[in-house]
Amino acid sequence: MTDAQPRSQEQRKADTLVKLTAPGVDVWVATAGADTSGHASPYLVPLSLAWIEERIVLATEADSVTARNLTSHQRARLGLGPTRDVVMIDAELEGVYGADEVPAGVAQGYAAQADWDPREAGGQMLFLVLRPLRIQAWREVDELPGRALMRDGTWLI
Amino acid sequence: MTDAQPRSQEQRKADTLVKLTAPGVDVWVATAGADTSGHASPYLVPLSLAWIEERIVLATEADSVTARNLTSHQRARLGLGPTRDVVMIDAELEGVYGADEVPAGVAQGYAAQADWDPREAGGQMLFLVLRPLRIQAWREVDELPGRALMRDGTWLI
Repeated sequence: MTDAQPRSQEQRKADTLVKLTAPGVDVWVATAGADTSGHASPYLVPLSLAWIEERIVLATEADSVTARNLTSHQRARLGLGPTRDVVMIDAELEGVYGADEVPAGVAQGYAAQADWDPREAGGQMLFLVLRPLRIQAWREVDELPGRALMRDGTWLI
Repeated sequence: MTDAQPRSQEQRKADTLVKLTAPGVDVWVATAGADTSGHASPYLVPLSLAWIEERIVLATEADSVTARNLTSHQRARLGLGPTRDVVMIDAELEGVYGADEVPAGVAQGYAAQADWDPREAGGQMLFLVLRPLRIQAWREVDELPGRALMRDGTWLI
């Protein structure tokens, strides 16, 4: 990296919001389930993201592992890259909507940011609305102090 | 994307090996644990990666969530980005070594590829050796068919 100073928390929050509202942005979505032996089983996949009224909105097939894990266990951990300029978000499931019942603001907001409309995708798509509980942002090791931007659902700055 | 044709499986395997052997490459590492209520709980973090004799080698602090989840549940799902040119790897834990007991070939291979040596990092670092069970590679929707490159630990091509 350069010899730049670690960013202030205010700057990191601003940078994070730029990332979350970028058109066509993808996010790494980690969820967990239980395998047949009862062991916790990790899942991970990149998905389009929309940031609507302080919520993360994802859309995926109803029978996908991500949808099943989220509806069963309610938790996701999201990574916005690249890996040396990350935003990490722990989030809980707040709402699940089929294409025929999704609030118009959610569907329109998603289509506008993600540049595709799950309502027109065919198959059984679900909109998953996630409430962020914890947000962290860092680039390199020198930014590990001060990486917490949100805790228990409340922005710290 | 461009109007390029979907890559052949041979090409995807070659591209995947280029990604896995790149110097200083980071990988998104998803693991799972169980929270206090028994719910499966996802974790995700970017880590440096080395590819040594068909194994993925990671290094992290012994008390990190990733190390605890892996030693408890043995499974990880890894994503190599960017999100529109991904390699997804499901892997199982094969070996865990402290800095004072790690085989020299593992430690040297890791240091050579990752460009840092966990043995010199201080703290209690663990080397985690993972055996890939399933590898998939795709760029966009047109590459979803044929994305499986390895199944049950065996390359398909």
